[in-house]
Amino acid sequence: MSPDASLRVGALIFPAMDQMDFTGPFEVLSQIPGCTFHLVWKDLAPLRDTRGLVLKPDTLLNEAPPSDVLLVPGGPGQEKLMDDEPVLSFLRDQARQARYTFSVCTGALICGAAGLLRGLRATTHWNSLHLLEYFGAMAVEARVVVDGKHVSTGGVTSGIDGALRLVQLLRGDQAAQVIQLAMQYAPEPPFQSGTPGTAPPEAAETCRAAFRRISEARLETARRVSRRLGLC
Amino acid sequence: MSPDASLRVGALIFPAMDQMDFTGPFEVLSQIPGCTFHLVWKDLAPLRDTRGLVLKPDTLLNEAPPSDVLLVPGGPGQEKLMDDEPVLSFLRDQARQARYTFSVCTGALICGAAGLLRGLRATTHWNSLHLLEYFGAMAVEARVVVDGKHVSTGGVTSGIDGALRLVQLLRGDQAAQVIQLAMQYAPEPPFQSGTPGTAPPEAAETCRAAFRRISEARLETARRVSRRLGLC
Repeated sequence: MSPDASLRVGALIFPAMDQMDFTGPFEVLSQIPGCTFHLVWKDLAPLRDTRGLVLKPDTLLNEAPPSDVLLVPGGPGQEKLMDDEPVLSFLRDQARQARYTFSVCTGALICGAAGLLRGLRATTHWNSLHLLEYFGAMAVEARVVVDGKHVSTGGVTSGIDGALRLVQLLRGDQAAQVIQLAMQYAPEPPFQSGTPGTAPPEAAETCRAAFRRISEARLETARRVSRRLGLC
Repeated sequence: MSPDASLRVGALIFPAMDQMDFTGPFEVLSQIPGCTFHLVWKDLAPLRDTRGLVLKPDTLLNEAPPSDVLLVPGGPGQEKLMDDEPVLSFLRDQARQARYTFSVCTGALICGAAGLLRGLRATTHWNSLHLLEYFGAMAVEARVVVDGKHVSTGGVTSGIDGALRLVQLLRGDQAAQVIQLAMQYAPEPPFQSGTPGTAPPEAAETCRAAFRRISEARLETARRVSRRLGLC
């Protein structure tokens, strides 16, 4: 069996995550022949994403086998994990052995809190991009950033683009092209409203206002974690 | 309370569906203020999508309240439902009262089998587009088609575009723009490979070959169902 015949993806899932940060990459990566997923959390009880979707962990944090790809989604639940030593240890242990670590959206903040982004170029959801420096990362305004073995993406839907890039890195162009075609990924967003720079100003202001409370909390957490990491 | 203060989405979920046909629209529609989801199936046991993701129904088919939006995802499991009278009756009953029916990917074939597409322009996954005529629909090669109160989309990821279009129809441009920005939907597919016409020929051939068995089954089912509907 060639080393490429199988691919184990370990995905951290957690309460109040954003389900699409995970389900987007799952859709892409699970189409790689030989790919298996472990949905990892502290217990195996069903949990709910930030809008109520039930997801079911299947692997305990302390029983997860080493992964080829470590997937870390984001969403408001990321806040609590940034001071959670068992989670951060899990990420560090996995990252040491993984071929790629892959953060989607504010999953990058969790990876940052685990010390995985020091000295790396990285990205995250546009609303949290300024927080990456607190973890010793260089923030890049891009949809997908690959630096060394860490792949990071912007918010939510960008996990699809990041996962296809990862397929390209792992299996080559054609493997990614076939998956892109199978999922008919020829997007046609109805508006120019996918980034704060292109969105109509009123829409951007409404969106920022909706994020205000979590934005404040994330800044405070980033500062505290940064001091713990000895970075500020 | 204005009629727009709440929005009930009833989503049919079923074994061997494609999870993203549902989770893409869920991500979008669940951000509408006042939106609630019912995940409807014959029993409440967890079920698995075509690649193994566990989803949890929360509402029984015969206990589902009327929906404002009826969401019908696709995936290989759609085959079995096309002769399943309780499912087809559920769809017809719901469709009668819904403001919109919304098929994603091969969910259109299920809607077609329920007789919901007669005389309508509609679309579905590129690999099944030629089957729509068996249900009395006019196949349109487009990512999102709105005809009357039925919204249909192409394969898998196009459910995101369709759901944003639906938000626009239900709540106006700005509501859709805010959601698009919140989920940073400014896609950058890594290849021109999202449709059979743009994909590299080798990728398209590999993809079609992978679909061959299900394509044959779907054609046979479409013919049989078409006879039952008295359409051929």
